[in-house]
Amino acid sequence: MPEKYVIIVAGGSGSRMGSTLPKQFLEVNGRPILMRTIEVFSSFDPAMAIILVLPQSNMALWKELCEEHRFLPAHQIVAGGASRFQSVRNGLEHLPDKGLVAIHDGVRPFVSTEVITQGFEVASKQGNAIVSLPLKESIREVPGPGNKSAARDRSKYRLVQTPQTFDISVIKKAYRQPESALFTDDASVVESAGDSIVLIDGNEENIKITHQADLLIAEALLKNKKSPA
Amino acid sequence: MPEKYVIIVAGGSGSRMGSTLPKQFLEVNGRPILMRTIEVFSSFDPAMAIILVLPQSNMALWKELCEEHRFLPAHQIVAGGASRFQSVRNGLEHLPDKGLVAIHDGVRPFVSTEVITQGFEVASKQGNAIVSLPLKESIREVPGPGNKSAARDRSKYRLVQTPQTFDISVIKKAYRQPESALFTDDASVVESAGDSIVLIDGNEENIKITHQADLLIAEALLKNKKSPA
Repeated sequence: MPEKYVIIVAGGSGSRMGSTLPKQFLEVNGRPILMRTIEVFSSFDPAMAIILVLPQSNMALWKELCEEHRFLPAHQIVAGGASRFQSVRNGLEHLPDKGLVAIHDGVRPFVSTEVITQGFEVASKQGNAIVSLPLKESIREVPGPGNKSAARDRSKYRLVQTPQTFDISVIKKAYRQPESALFTDDASVVESAGDSIVLIDGNEENIKITHQADLLIAEALLKNKKSPA
Repeated sequence: MPEKYVIIVAGGSGSRMGSTLPKQFLEVNGRPILMRTIEVFSSFDPAMAIILVLPQSNMALWKELCEEHRFLPAHQIVAGGASRFQSVRNGLEHLPDKGLVAIHDGVRPFVSTEVITQGFEVASKQGNAIVSLPLKESIREVPGPGNKSAARDRSKYRLVQTPQTFDISVIKKAYRQPESALFTDDASVVESAGDSIVLIDGNEENIKITHQADLLIAEALLKNKKSPA
């Protein structure tokens, strides 16, 4: 297996949380979400290099939080850019040209070890591995302004999560493209560079903490994780 | 405002829960999910007629549970069919020809009163009101067998939930069509009958309890609902 890296992207502004503190710094059971996310990877493989992409404006806060919570896992901090694309690109500059990299949202602390493992294994063979889940709900396409919409077959869609794991040469090549509004995640960048995307199954608990209700959900999931059952 | 009704559809088999008991009967904080769902509507409007569509094979169990939990809200029980379409159609047969009906999943106990109100108001003016939410995650379309997939613009899609509220004449007309595999919800049935769908915003907490992880999430949401904050 080639050398493994992870880039954790923590660039969100927290505007959807009704909070001025960016959501990755909010605490779940007394510990900032972002620390929990980093710990999943440092526990998975203590030797793996962890790159944390943070907005420049949050760096001082992050250092304070690390001291306050005696946060130990080694990680390299890289300044984010004006968009997610630019943040990931900045992170990639700190990687060598060979190996595998998982790119993961800072606000997804519940990814399972099995999913991380599967991501590296599939990416080492096929160049990439994108975590996704089937839809539990019906879906409609909203083609234009107004309320006109059309039912779509939900079995033909998958919701895309992270980690998205890549052969480093594949993702670095893709990020040499100019930025586009169509790039909503790393898979779409790699696809635009001409590579085929490989989907793997995620775990249901791997939620993205975006809304206030998600904080409650996170506390419940954490409680369950700790219980011996 | 015309007379209001609700059809609660509780036909699921529970196979995704790793449980032999259908999921609507599982307890959250000591009370079956289905009772909590019914109570949302009976509290919203104690005068509203509630029709519960249940598989024939679960009727005895439901009656036992109602006695055990001293479940009081009045509701009419109707036998479900072999599919969701047939279950809803059976429920509709017990409605008069005029009025408004909300059709709601038995496993969504966290719909807010505001969303129910909005559904009836919009449906009374525009014929239907379908609860939906924007996507929090990227989406890919999986067009065929294998892992070939393509990124889609998530802002062009909405996840569809319940309640889906209709003018009774509109929904009854739609359900006179023959059943189709394309009918994944009531909105798609009404759309196929030639009506335009009206989307309204739902509440984030209104999750569908489908997987084991959802039970934990439900307990967390319930805890929050009860707190004075």
